[in-house]
Amino acid sequence: MSEQLFKRIDHVGLVVSSLDASLATYCGQLGYTLLERIVIPEQKVEAAFLDAGNGTIELISPTDTESGTARYLANRGEGTHHICFEVDDIVATLAALKAANVRLVDETPRQGPHGLVAFVHPKATHGMMIEVLQKSHH
Amino acid sequence: MSEQLFKRIDHVGLVVSSLDASLATYCGQLGYTLLERIVIPEQKVEAAFLDAGNGTIELISPTDTESGTARYLANRGEGTHHICFEVDDIVATLAALKAANVRLVDETPRQGPHGLVAFVHPKATHGMMIEVLQKSHH
Repeated sequence: MSEQLFKRIDHVGLVVSSLDASLATYCGQLGYTLLERIVIPEQKVEAAFLDAGNGTIELISPTDTESGTARYLANRGEGTHHICFEVDDIVATLAALKAANVRLVDETPRQGPHGLVAFVHPKATHGMMIEVLQKSHH
Repeated sequence: MSEQLFKRIDHVGLVVSSLDASLATYCGQLGYTLLERIVIPEQKVEAAFLDAGNGTIELISPTDTESGTARYLANRGEGTHHICFEVDDIVATLAALKAANVRLVDETPRQGPHGLVAFVHPKATHGMMIEVLQKSHH
């Protein structure tokens, strides 16, 4: 593959049990600035985005007990969940990954809060959960 | 805390069992460009840095069976290990974190391959292993 598909690190996703408690840590103790706090009903999570300079930290807390995020938290506890990379064209990226025999969680993009997203299967990436994001421009 | 201590995401660290196999995946299948491959004797690891645009991915493979990285790999398998944030002044950062009662792995900086580094304890950050880096300028 000759072209760099992944343009930049957009954010690091951290699953937490309490958004309020983790915001107290990240903003109150560690000095991060809260940019945005949103409910994402289709993913059954609440998320907070913190300014990390060249990208963000996404704190993610499940709002039910059945979602993938809730199961992750129950099974593994709080911790780093995924790394999101921005791409120019998510459909072309997913096609290139499939052509390279990379196993995907999402073969077609889904709508996320900041654009179209898809997850690569962690078994294809030595355990790192990679999200790809094509940002929407408002 | 009024000032943003963590200036930017420098890299994402991924622990792998084989550097060659993970480079075949990340460069051969996913299209990342290898920037640097180095042995870090004091950490008993070999590392490869990949271009992620606004930062890098560090693939880390233990070269013995006793290091912290080797134990991490044995206990948890391959996966995301730490997120490294660049800071302007690591001594001032560690002092500010201690003053905010943040538990640290390293109370004083250690020499890393690209500058002075220290780890924050993951119990203090809801499970995300944070490395801070004050880059050396050659």
